[in-house]
Amino acid sequence: MNQLNICIAGLGNVGSNLISTIEKNKDFIASKASFLINIKGISAKNPNKKRIFKLKNYKWFHNPLDLLTINDCNVLIELIGDEKGISYNLVKKSLEKKINVITANKALLAKNGSELFRLAEKNNVLLLYEAAVAGGIPIIRTLKQNIFLHNIKRISGILNGTTNYILTTMFNKNKSFDEVLEIAKDKGYTTTNEAELDIGGLDSAHKLTLLTTLCFGSVINYNNNNVTGLANIETFDLINAYKLGYKIKLISEASLINNQIYCVTEPKLISINNPLANVDGVLNAIYLETDQLESLFLEGEGAGGKATASSVISDLYEIASNTNIKSLGYSNKKLINFKKLDISAIKSLYYLRIMTKDIAGVLSKITSYFKNFNISIEKILQLPDTSNKEKPIPIIITTHEVQKKILMKVINKIEKQKFVLAKITIIQIDKNL
Amino acid sequence: MNQLNICIAGLGNVGSNLISTIEKNKDFIASKASFLINIKGISAKNPNKKRIFKLKNYKWFHNPLDLLTINDCNVLIELIGDEKGISYNLVKKSLEKKINVITANKALLAKNGSELFRLAEKNNVLLLYEAAVAGGIPIIRTLKQNIFLHNIKRISGILNGTTNYILTTMFNKNKSFDEVLEIAKDKGYTTTNEAELDIGGLDSAHKLTLLTTLCFGSVINYNNNNVTGLANIETFDLINAYKLGYKIKLISEASLINNQIYCVTEPKLISINNPLANVDGVLNAIYLETDQLESLFLEGEGAGGKATASSVISDLYEIASNTNIKSLGYSNKKLINFKKLDISAIKSLYYLRIMTKDIAGVLSKITSYFKNFNISIEKILQLPDTSNKEKPIPIIITTHEVQKKILMKVINKIEKQKFVLAKITIIQIDKNL
Repeated sequence: MNQLNICIAGLGNVGSNLISTIEKNKDFIASKASFLINIKGISAKNPNKKRIFKLKNYKWFHNPLDLLTINDCNVLIELIGDEKGISYNLVKKSLEKKINVITANKALLAKNGSELFRLAEKNNVLLLYEAAVAGGIPIIRTLKQNIFLHNIKRISGILNGTTNYILTTMFNKNKSFDEVLEIAKDKGYTTTNEAELDIGGLDSAHKLTLLTTLCFGSVINYNNNNVTGLANIETFDLINAYKLGYKIKLISEASLINNQIYCVTEPKLISINNPLANVDGVLNAIYLETDQLESLFLEGEGAGGKATASSVISDLYEIASNTNIKSLGYSNKKLINFKKLDISAIKSLYYLRIMTKDIAGVLSKITSYFKNFNISIEKILQLPDTSNKEKPIPIIITTHEVQKKILMKVINKIEKQKFVLAKITIIQIDKNL
Repeated sequence: MNQLNICIAGLGNVGSNLISTIEKNKDFIASKASFLINIKGISAKNPNKKRIFKLKNYKWFHNPLDLLTINDCNVLIELIGDEKGISYNLVKKSLEKKINVITANKALLAKNGSELFRLAEKNNVLLLYEAAVAGGIPIIRTLKQNIFLHNIKRISGILNGTTNYILTTMFNKNKSFDEVLEIAKDKGYTTTNEAELDIGGLDSAHKLTLLTTLCFGSVINYNNNNVTGLANIETFDLINAYKLGYKIKLISEASLINNQIYCVTEPKLISINNPLANVDGVLNAIYLETDQLESLFLEGEGAGGKATASSVISDLYEIASNTNIKSLGYSNKKLINFKKLDISAIKSLYYLRIMTKDIAGVLSKITSYFKNFNISIEKILQLPDTSNKEKPIPIIITTHEVQKKILMKVINKIEKQKFVLAKITIIQIDKNL
């Protein structure tokens, strides 16, 4: 029987569920897959916190770095989740000691992956991270093994459960962003600290960084990301979008365009016929187009201790399976340093919300600016609130294809007009059905 | 550089696309994955048929069995697709000669897999079949590697593109089964020969046989299947189902219930909130529930030469990756011969369509039979066609939970009544949202 001796640093939701699942399934795993998982040591900040497993059944290490002194440990599992600091040190030292590493730490890998994956390859050990992207959805292994020999055209996904929950609930319950954020915190989907990474789109961008490397063989480079968070999305926009046949989702998308990296996380209007539009609540999903598949769609739990722990366990199985597949699929030396695409030159469709004073001639002035820049308007919704002459009037415009940089010229002109009462909301409309 | 020398028997849609994709991607694959695919020989019935690649670039073998005389062949790819005969002989002889086999042949594996997988394991070679189930969706590898250490609760899917196309088009275009079947043949989705396997649900059952073994570690046994095809489904049912909040799909589902195998392919009413309800056209999809994941949903192309060929290529990559994972995930000796569950004892919800004469008192008679057997009715739709007194009146009934065997007693009673003009249509309603 194959044996894996593991140690675990970080015993939050994922770490605790990992231990609990291993306890429940140890015999099942031994019988199904002929391998034994032995937990040789654990470490966390607080030894006194109440957890879903009995701490005293395991050897406790106050300092996670001391886990590396365990003699026969095959795998270090890093679930502390710091972007730098102890997480970085622990992973690095583990790889230097030729101990395989499994981590759920997307921020660490997005920022320091280039160094860490090279170190793993040099020392002939694995650095695995199925749990770092889309929780329980096996997207890493799908890209690295199942469809690795495809030439991937485009990857597009919903990679953050918290923001998807917020957008879904704002729309379904007609509640404001701030109200729903509080509900999300109450439900434990996010914390005040995490919320900034979630809402700002940074957590999604960390994950997209890894997916981009897996899909296109690009050097891991977080700076390739263009990120826009939810800041300007209002419930009103979600409702208007739906009237136009769209849902608004925080979409992370990557492709190679003219041999340059397109890697963008931003809220987008998605046609209700696109499967991504129906991914609701805390679910995550990924949509792939390749030279051999018109579409492959995966949907599942993007977060949660149990689902994420299941991905850690699948990494343990990869290590036990003794494959010759590299941590990133590619050998590090094959990764290419693609140029970052200037996205301002890409042509897209846009949704605009302009808040104006209720005075005559506003609409004709606005449309004349668009005409001057040859931007063709697809639809206009003017939604006057006749009950209150003092309230700003929202004008919703959807455009035909236009470069963002051209659009921004018009936006800047219009925003300077006195009848415009607020910054104009600009959301891209996804062209793919 | 790793090398795989392959030979291919069967050059229909999948075989031809396989060669064409390898030709296009040979350098790409060599550079991305450091392995070379060499096609050492090909064989098919007709050397003169026009194909999408140049036959003369490859060594032709008139008899596919002669492919096994090639000295340095690592992999035999069987794409002839016979359930027995030459396909069986070729696969068996190849495994006996310790040559890995890749096949898309679900019928062969569902019927003879038990023998063939044992032979592969004995001879320490792989018998791979990603292309045999759900075309381009990597469901085999997902079950065998990505979530192999999960305890799977239930698998449910749409595994046949042709029937899904037929059901979708009957509903969307309000056309009859026979009309749409002709369209499906014209489009090349099925042939007169294949149609029987598709429409009868047998093709889906072949695939479900393999999935059941992967999910539950059961001995491969086609006899575990309970199969109902589309025979009794009319466009009228699809429209009524939609009015009640459902789509009708040909669903293949397996689970272990009281340690017995539940393995059923049948048309079902699926709530429009269930992602399977929105899988339209020739797409396939699979929905999984495990001890660690509430849901994992995969959707993609279930057929088509290119998509299916891509799964053959992923099997080549598995062979090149030199993993120690078995063909079925499990070692053959671990497979369990579960008892087949008596599904007539399972409680379900049902949709019934009863075609009756337009005479007074019919509804009260029908409902009294249900009352006598304590079957509780959820909804009744009586849809009289006032334009024509001669035409039968359809009565649609949905029931609360009832055992099929109890339901059948009532059905038999009602069918004997003179006012009932046709066999009653009985379709199960899926309980899972």
